[in-house]
Amino acid sequence: MVTMVLEAIKYTPQGLYILDQLRLPHESVYIPIANSVDAFNAIRSMTVRGAPAIAIVAALALAVELANTEFPTADEVRRFVSEKLKYLVTSRPTAVNLSDAAGKLENLVNETEGDAKKLVGTYIAAAEKMLVDDVNDNTNIGRNGLEWSKKIIGNDKFSILTICNTGSLATAGYGTALGIIRSIHRDGLLSHAYALETRPYNQGSRLTAYELVHDNIPATLITDSMASVLLKTHPEIKMIVVGADRVAKNGDTANKIGTYQLSIIAKHHGVKFVVAAPTTSIDLRTKSGEDIVIEQRKPEELVTFRGPVIDTEGNVTKEEIKTVHIAAPGIGVWNPAFDVAPAALIDAIVTEKGVVEKDENGEFHLEPFFL
Amino acid sequence: MVTMVLEAIKYTPQGLYILDQLRLPHESVYIPIANSVDAFNAIRSMTVRGAPAIAIVAALALAVELANTEFPTADEVRRFVSEKLKYLVTSRPTAVNLSDAAGKLENLVNETEGDAKKLVGTYIAAAEKMLVDDVNDNTNIGRNGLEWSKKIIGNDKFSILTICNTGSLATAGYGTALGIIRSIHRDGLLSHAYALETRPYNQGSRLTAYELVHDNIPATLITDSMASVLLKTHPEIKMIVVGADRVAKNGDTANKIGTYQLSIIAKHHGVKFVVAAPTTSIDLRTKSGEDIVIEQRKPEELVTFRGPVIDTEGNVTKEEIKTVHIAAPGIGVWNPAFDVAPAALIDAIVTEKGVVEKDENGEFHLEPFFL
Repeated sequence: MVTMVLEAIKYTPQGLYILDQLRLPHESVYIPIANSVDAFNAIRSMTVRGAPAIAIVAALALAVELANTEFPTADEVRRFVSEKLKYLVTSRPTAVNLSDAAGKLENLVNETEGDAKKLVGTYIAAAEKMLVDDVNDNTNIGRNGLEWSKKIIGNDKFSILTICNTGSLATAGYGTALGIIRSIHRDGLLSHAYALETRPYNQGSRLTAYELVHDNIPATLITDSMASVLLKTHPEIKMIVVGADRVAKNGDTANKIGTYQLSIIAKHHGVKFVVAAPTTSIDLRTKSGEDIVIEQRKPEELVTFRGPVIDTEGNVTKEEIKTVHIAAPGIGVWNPAFDVAPAALIDAIVTEKGVVEKDENGEFHLEPFFL
Repeated sequence: MVTMVLEAIKYTPQGLYILDQLRLPHESVYIPIANSVDAFNAIRSMTVRGAPAIAIVAALALAVELANTEFPTADEVRRFVSEKLKYLVTSRPTAVNLSDAAGKLENLVNETEGDAKKLVGTYIAAAEKMLVDDVNDNTNIGRNGLEWSKKIIGNDKFSILTICNTGSLATAGYGTALGIIRSIHRDGLLSHAYALETRPYNQGSRLTAYELVHDNIPATLITDSMASVLLKTHPEIKMIVVGADRVAKNGDTANKIGTYQLSIIAKHHGVKFVVAAPTTSIDLRTKSGEDIVIEQRKPEELVTFRGPVIDTEGNVTKEEIKTVHIAAPGIGVWNPAFDVAPAALIDAIVTEKGVVEKDENGEFHLEPFFL
């Protein structure tokens, strides 16, 4: 299939390459990841980011390393895999996806019987399947979102607004909310995509804008403050689609700061508000948004900005990257990492397994995904 | 009276000094304005900004120049004043306040009879009165806003959220929306002020935050995207107060981009939404917000940031000011300068002459201010 979709992770059995996110959006450079040390450094330095992406880069880096190493015995393979996975997990100890993936891969190799070659082949196949499965989940989210939009919005072209980055740069590929935009675009139904810059870390202007430009999707960047007047003056925008850090049992959705505000203005303007998330982001143990603690991030994120310097002629100078300070010294800062869009303001939750809408009592039922 | 209020314009008959807004918020430097050439350069270079401030700096600069110049005849004064005012108006030809003020001062000098000394004295008194009147209008807006809040919100401490800069740095002094915050603070009723950073030009993080820190008003900076979760988690915020670029006859209010969104979320959370504006900002010829054209500003404002560089130790280096680029190259940008909060979402319009609320039909009546 010919595709224009940005690939942040390029893998063949011969090698693994990742898009250097530290140089985005001004430079697009793929760097080789030949072994677990390369992967450790890439994760630690934030060259690769996003929970699913980190886990898959770690798993595939070890696959490449195993393919290029000679092992005398099966036990040598088991020892090597166990040691390298433990080391890789220390690159980002808080990343649950990474430690989950490492645990599964280690168990698989320990439980597989056979010679060294058999074990190496089993590991490589499992690591490759993680990449394929994650991308498949995302393309299924995209397809389910497209089908839902056809049912609810119809078969005329329409425009979509999104927040943060939920694309190839945040996942193993394709994306969740941005995956739905991609699927609607591929189907010829997308009129225009609007990306919120997503303060304070500007994932929208840096990463989502980069992906939209890369994929040649007609797109426009706005500030977070412009969302309401955009909806008012552009009635062709029929849908706001957002990702999810965590979906509670009742459908309340924690996501990037600004999502709650978007859900309010969607309701005010009669625009559909859609959450895109793999079922792994649904946490039935969290009863509602009330149970989600809002983490505070450091103030520097809000009052400084890092980017390439613009010279006196107005050109971007890729060689000179600086951090500038953009606020009055001494002012206090409040910087919550995310907020919660309440189920009452959400029209649909789109997963790889299907789409859920509220019942006649206004309640989401997410349990069937886990039966 | 001992006051902590920031003075952006310092004037005595011996001299005029203005706070250099190009060096804010990281440096607070007053520069002398000795004559009309100094004022022209300060206005042209944006060292002084804000429509009322520009007009008053121009008028007072010429007052200082006249006080230090010998004139043989009254006609020499008239010729000199006329020539210098025409020159000053060319510093910012689109500024209506500036050309209005120049026209009034020229007419006054032309119509006054007497010798050179009499005419110079008349001009100086009139220019000084402009400064006093503008500050008085603002303190009256502040007092009226305070009284209204006591009537509607009560006599318990409460917190306030505001957008953009409407303080001493945007007016001749004290401010409109920020003037109301100052008055409520002076009265001991302000619990906390919250300033939106106000993308894309960050007047909130640069200027309002500077004024709040200067005046020792307890204050916190947030991004525009955080307003809704702030209101939800901080029920002590009882009021959002904003300035106005123009108030239409029906009360629809054009103001800094993001104001419309604020008016929606104020309603959603049951928070009072208050417009602060001198009656000179009310335009009865504009029937409603529908008649207000939204001006587009240049894309660079949204994708670049200028500020002092932070060195490798995390310190702000005041000597090195750079502009950095903060978005994906090639992305389109939508950058409306302002939007319109509809009268339906506004609870009160506070002017120097009094406060207007809607009648039982939900309609504002602003005409009485002009009878």
